[in-house]
Amino acid sequence: VKLVKYEKPISGAVIRRLPRYYRYLSTLKEMGISKVSSKDMGNRMGITSSQVRQDFFCFGGYGLQGYGYDVEFLHEEIGKILGIGTTKQMIIIGAGSLGQALAKHKGFEKRGFKIIAIFDVKSELLGEKINEHEIMHLDQLSDFVANNQVDIAALAVPDNFGREVAGLVTRLGIKAIWNFAAIELNTPEDVIVESIHLIDSLIVLGYNLENKK
Amino acid sequence: VKLVKYEKPISGAVIRRLPRYYRYLSTLKEMGISKVSSKDMGNRMGITSSQVRQDFFCFGGYGLQGYGYDVEFLHEEIGKILGIGTTKQMIIIGAGSLGQALAKHKGFEKRGFKIIAIFDVKSELLGEKINEHEIMHLDQLSDFVANNQVDIAALAVPDNFGREVAGLVTRLGIKAIWNFAAIELNTPEDVIVESIHLIDSLIVLGYNLENKK
Repeated sequence: VKLVKYEKPISGAVIRRLPRYYRYLSTLKEMGISKVSSKDMGNRMGITSSQVRQDFFCFGGYGLQGYGYDVEFLHEEIGKILGIGTTKQMIIIGAGSLGQALAKHKGFEKRGFKIIAIFDVKSELLGEKINEHEIMHLDQLSDFVANNQVDIAALAVPDNFGREVAGLVTRLGIKAIWNFAAIELNTPEDVIVESIHLIDSLIVLGYNLENKK
Repeated sequence: VKLVKYEKPISGAVIRRLPRYYRYLSTLKEMGISKVSSKDMGNRMGITSSQVRQDFFCFGGYGLQGYGYDVEFLHEEIGKILGIGTTKQMIIIGAGSLGQALAKHKGFEKRGFKIIAIFDVKSELLGEKINEHEIMHLDQLSDFVANNQVDIAALAVPDNFGREVAGLVTRLGIKAIWNFAAIELNTPEDVIVESIHLIDSLIVLGYNLENKK
């Protein structure tokens, strides 16, 4: 059940800012701060205060002049919009160093993303345990998906296997892919892909370093 | 020496697309394909062909109707703009599973990002080798930076140490930070920050999964 107050669809650009707002609001809450101005929020995030006000207006956040926004309210509303607190089950495909790092990451489960299995094809990795999960062979994926709710597949496989593994995952009916391979995935329309392109990020950093004013 | 032909500064949004174009063009080159249309390029990347044409026009890429763009030329120009091929030296701070995954990643050096050292504070990690690099204590960072060209510091530290380590790195004169901590860093203006917020990406994926049409 969606309890949020907005009617219009929220744009992708706004959605992408929401986790950052949410993180900042979480910190303020932990610090016992109850009000925040759009100016402080914008400064922290490197965006204008008018952008902040516009974003918050989308989902019923009304600030009062000289008073600011209610941290608790915003935190709760944004959390609801983002579905924070609802559990999603995730598998990791690829148990190399990146896949293992994802499996060991402490921040995911706290936000509702529960890792339930890890798969690889390298026989020397099979049976090894990462946290409580034994690494399984990719051949077992089909059975696993048939017997478990898998919401998200994280692909931490070599770039040249990315497309093949994405195809497999899609055929098995998984509807969300968190892709770490440095490739563009073309999936069916009903499959959501979110990519982390490490090398692209690093190249942009290098570019900005070379070309700063 | 910059050999590129454009005069105007390129917008951040265009810059962020360039590594993706570059990757795609690299693949086409490897496949021996010499021409590509803006339509195919756009399809692959999920953007419109007119956006592709507009982007390429920025840096002197002129397509011919019914003929397309020259893959080799575009690949070279975009590579020059991005500074691909010039070496940048990077250190990794944080030798946990994420830091180790970054240190072992094979794609960075190929694009000119050379990892030259890894630092941590945990005594049990010190002296351990990751690839050819021994993990050093963070206390040695100051000496290391004094004696080596460090272009980029990758921060793979726990979130609550991010700000402190970014401050240290900045005081030592490092001008680019690749941040993996789930925090917003406020650094001096001449320090470039590029963040990979894993949890934000996952939350957006979860949102899009819940809210797809």
